[in-house]
Amino acid sequence: MTFERANIRAMAGYTYGEQPDDPRVIKLNTNENPYPPSPRVGEAIAGFDYRTLRRYPPATADDFRRLAAERFHIDAEQVVVTNGGDEALRLALTTFVEPGGVFGMAEPSYSLYPVLANVHGARIERVDLDTSWRPTADFVGQLNAAATELTCIVNPHAPSGTLLDHQTIDELAAAHDGVLLVDEAYVDFVDPSLEHNLVPLIEKHDNLLLLRTMSKGYSLAGLRFGFLMGPAELIAPIVGKTRDSYNVDGISQRIASAAFADHPYAADTWARVRNERERLSKDLSALGLSSEPSQANFLLTKVGGRFPNGAKHVQDELRRRGILVRHFADARLDEYLRVTVGTPDENDRLLNALESIAG
Amino acid sequence: MTFERANIRAMAGYTYGEQPDDPRVIKLNTNENPYPPSPRVGEAIAGFDYRTLRRYPPATADDFRRLAAERFHIDAEQVVVTNGGDEALRLALTTFVEPGGVFGMAEPSYSLYPVLANVHGARIERVDLDTSWRPTADFVGQLNAAATELTCIVNPHAPSGTLLDHQTIDELAAAHDGVLLVDEAYVDFVDPSLEHNLVPLIEKHDNLLLLRTMSKGYSLAGLRFGFLMGPAELIAPIVGKTRDSYNVDGISQRIASAAFADHPYAADTWARVRNERERLSKDLSALGLSSEPSQANFLLTKVGGRFPNGAKHVQDELRRRGILVRHFADARLDEYLRVTVGTPDENDRLLNALESIAG
Repeated sequence: MTFERANIRAMAGYTYGEQPDDPRVIKLNTNENPYPPSPRVGEAIAGFDYRTLRRYPPATADDFRRLAAERFHIDAEQVVVTNGGDEALRLALTTFVEPGGVFGMAEPSYSLYPVLANVHGARIERVDLDTSWRPTADFVGQLNAAATELTCIVNPHAPSGTLLDHQTIDELAAAHDGVLLVDEAYVDFVDPSLEHNLVPLIEKHDNLLLLRTMSKGYSLAGLRFGFLMGPAELIAPIVGKTRDSYNVDGISQRIASAAFADHPYAADTWARVRNERERLSKDLSALGLSSEPSQANFLLTKVGGRFPNGAKHVQDELRRRGILVRHFADARLDEYLRVTVGTPDENDRLLNALESIAG
Repeated sequence: MTFERANIRAMAGYTYGEQPDDPRVIKLNTNENPYPPSPRVGEAIAGFDYRTLRRYPPATADDFRRLAAERFHIDAEQVVVTNGGDEALRLALTTFVEPGGVFGMAEPSYSLYPVLANVHGARIERVDLDTSWRPTADFVGQLNAAATELTCIVNPHAPSGTLLDHQTIDELAAAHDGVLLVDEAYVDFVDPSLEHNLVPLIEKHDNLLLLRTMSKGYSLAGLRFGFLMGPAELIAPIVGKTRDSYNVDGISQRIASAAFADHPYAADTWARVRNERERLSKDLSALGLSSEPSQANFLLTKVGGRFPNGAKHVQDELRRRGILVRHFADARLDEYLRVTVGTPDENDRLLNALESIAG
């Protein structure tokens, strides 16, 4: 006798990036920030009165909502806090997609999207990106033709790092009949000279959600803390109905607020990552490995030339040398590796290892 | 234009127990443990290296799973860790109930159950408990006749505190065609002389899940940490498919393990609560307020006699005096108040306040 729902039984679970126990391993496979969180996080933990855990936490994390609202010049009612960005994605499905309804996504994209859609029992409309990993002219047309209720796009794009600008998102949101969720997991690493800021668009579009996470930009992947910004009409049912009633614990709320408030510290890590992104891209290029122009904290690098045995082989050889990078089981990505930008020392060791692997 | 699903739009959200900011308020309304968590929790927090938050947490909280498996003499594969007990309830719905399918519950019961079922788009089969808050002889018959895929019962029962014994649960699980989830949120407060232990039943029934939470017994409502125990076949799809991929953060895992490992400390708080439960029940009785026999950390007390204006009036008068207790908007519960067992001092102040309210 099986009790699982048929769609759950039929689906595969999410495939994690490898998380090794050995601290000597150089982890350039899951896009974590190479720098630790702000020292203010350490102070928040040290100053936390454990006895307060006896009581339920603030149910809607209003202190953090106010901080985020202030930073982005919006109202707290336009923010909902979630147990990591992953919960925000799930909640968007729960709130806006009927079981049996249609979830839209670009292909390739974050590999969790289809897993969450399968759990929900949604049909998935996959629309291929063009050769520079951007939406085609007919992207939204295809989504609308399929009656897509919610589309998730990750911007900067994963795994390429390509950034869609304000005008492009503005046009996509205007054209889309359903809700458009822009997953900004990597937005903190965008070059500030681009003055990229999508937040004002939530005042213009009634169907636009922006997803942020503390995992990458604030070095808090271990904490599980994210938030959605959007029109109050989209945020309210998530806050009041579909969210688990106490979805973010009391100590996490304090830690996240401390990290978020120390913007200068985080911004310094972003600048370091951008510098290394540029340097690593050049040095990979000198090895014959060209990368897509990236505004994220990773590079999608095409493997060829002096590496005739292909990307998977290079990944395996790097692993033998204690360095993890990501290869995707996807026909369009078969020749590529996704490499998280590490510290200068980690990147040096990656480059040295690649030199030793090269023919 | 509305983007919400019709069922979300139509439903009401969960109604929280009041969580006042004023620390002088005596909170006997949300069943928190009146004692702080183990000092080991404080030490775990003080010793936590905040820099480790940079990386993703252990995805399936295996350290805690091993601790729980050892304590309950089961395998780690029979345990899944969740972001509070509420997430476990939601995951059981997600995994075992088709949207449009049937969710079963006893009436009255934990008021979150129907909220989660409405979010999921399940139909709800409510079966009234008898006058002593126990399942009627036809309880499972009604559930099966409605093709119920999952039934949640809370045991000890909320809000009455009534305990169903091992044999009763054994019979319910054997008779139920769907999955039976026994929500043991309050089980830590059961009198140890009863030797109540349902865990062996998960080896016997392929459809039985037991839900535990650290919120009450381990004084960690603020942490959000729960777990399900059950046959590996029921646990596996939750671990590998329906659970958010990193559902419990890194610092919570350490805190929960520290608290759980300090069983003697927690057990001492349970004994204190049991002593006060008995004393409070007697003293309420002396005021003319009789309570259901409770194996939980609360009493369901019938208001009458010297309190002719009814339970809601007494709740309001207590609030005016800085004491919160719970009254439910439910016809069968209209004459009752649910009172969390507090510290001896808190209970004294409750009794004094009641004396001052009595006619």
